[in-house]
Amino acid sequence: MSHAAAAANDRTASPAAGPSTRKPPRRTAERILDHTLELFNRYGEPNVSTTLISAELSISPGNLYYHYPAKEALVNALVERYERALQEALTAAGPADDAEGAWLLVPRLFRLCWDYRFLFRDLNDLLTRNRQLETRCQVALTQQTAAVRQRVVRLCAVDGTALNDEEADALATSIVVLLNYWLSFEYVRDPRRALEPENAEAAMRRGARQVQALIWPYLSAELRQRMRPTLSEDALKRGNVAVRG
Amino acid sequence: MSHAAAAANDRTASPAAGPSTRKPPRRTAERILDHTLELFNRYGEPNVSTTLISAELSISPGNLYYHYPAKEALVNALVERYERALQEALTAAGPADDAEGAWLLVPRLFRLCWDYRFLFRDLNDLLTRNRQLETRCQVALTQQTAAVRQRVVRLCAVDGTALNDEEADALATSIVVLLNYWLSFEYVRDPRRALEPENAEAAMRRGARQVQALIWPYLSAELRQRMRPTLSEDALKRGNVAVRG
Repeated sequence: MSHAAAAANDRTASPAAGPSTRKPPRRTAERILDHTLELFNRYGEPNVSTTLISAELSISPGNLYYHYPAKEALVNALVERYERALQEALTAAGPADDAEGAWLLVPRLFRLCWDYRFLFRDLNDLLTRNRQLETRCQVALTQQTAAVRQRVVRLCAVDGTALNDEEADALATSIVVLLNYWLSFEYVRDPRRALEPENAEAAMRRGARQVQALIWPYLSAELRQRMRPTLSEDALKRGNVAVRG
Repeated sequence: MSHAAAAANDRTASPAAGPSTRKPPRRTAERILDHTLELFNRYGEPNVSTTLISAELSISPGNLYYHYPAKEALVNALVERYERALQEALTAAGPADDAEGAWLLVPRLFRLCWDYRFLFRDLNDLLTRNRQLETRCQVALTQQTAAVRQRVVRLCAVDGTALNDEEADALATSIVVLLNYWLSFEYVRDPRRALEPENAEAAMRRGARQVQALIWPYLSAELRQRMRPTLSEDALKRGNVAVRG
């Protein structure tokens, strides 16, 4: 099917389909992305073909091709979504000088890793095949590291031992490694269960706790104690973790 | 080619080949593994076919099939090698009560991750396709965690702040995550250079330093100072790191 034919197909519902399937191109593009993300997350990006995607969506391969001329275009569009969601998470976590609000960032970033887990699952493989991802991943890591660094520095300055530059760099880097690889680690520890949707909250909670533990030695006994029991399921579901008990 | 024919082929050098190619089956099997490991590490396991392996080795597909009837058999044999190397690394690092010798373990485990980097590169994908790996990876992680835990507990008890159980568990887990994912993280930060063989030493050195940084807050200022400048290129090449400056 030509681009033009696919476009026409997209704008005009086939006679057999009801009016509810008449969707403007923009919405179709978003719907394709939603389903693709789900399929990538469930089966892994290398195992999902564009044929499978169009079959799952009940659209013609030509229609899919009109919106995304290759699987790489789908990956890139999903990475753009991820980048926007990362910005939102960084903004939503509040300013860096809100010491206790700093904790909001950790579950938000874990949630992001969960929502886009296909990216982290086979990142090395994706990077090998898609050079556009290279710079974008570097930017995302740099942003995460900077945001985490600001917050741990602030948290420790307000409550515990002030971090020197070397400690702050090392701590932020270790936290970013934990954030981005924790779910993979959970998967290796328990491939049949850890990343089933019903267990994801628990996996993220363990990850958030693991991040907390990195900061323990720098915090006052009092704040440490207060942080302990607060990683409730509810807080994680809301995408935030209260610091006060 | 039948198994028997392949076996015969393996034992009898073809008339064109010189006497140096006359290798007993055991050695051929090992040679196949050496080359396969190299190819897997260079291109990623999913991108290496048995056809490529036999072509690279200049052996017939039947001969390869005689030794390893599927790619999975090659992966499993390499995992066995990895497991043996892990045991050797754990043994070579000395007993857990040798506090300063504890550091020997970190560069040895990084070296292992480097030598078998194909495993860690696409571990999630491998686990999905090869259920035999599941238990074996869990055992390897458990062994690593136990060995690391014993050593950090000892190191901190001798020199710094004694760790409680919760701290020791968290610290050992974070170190194991860093050990197993650091090279992937390096790759994401710099896909074109980080894991080129000439840069691998530096990548492992940064990883070992990152692990050290996790333990810093628990150590006395004096030991911390002594540990600092000792992660020399030489030490990493020898697979060990001196604690004394």
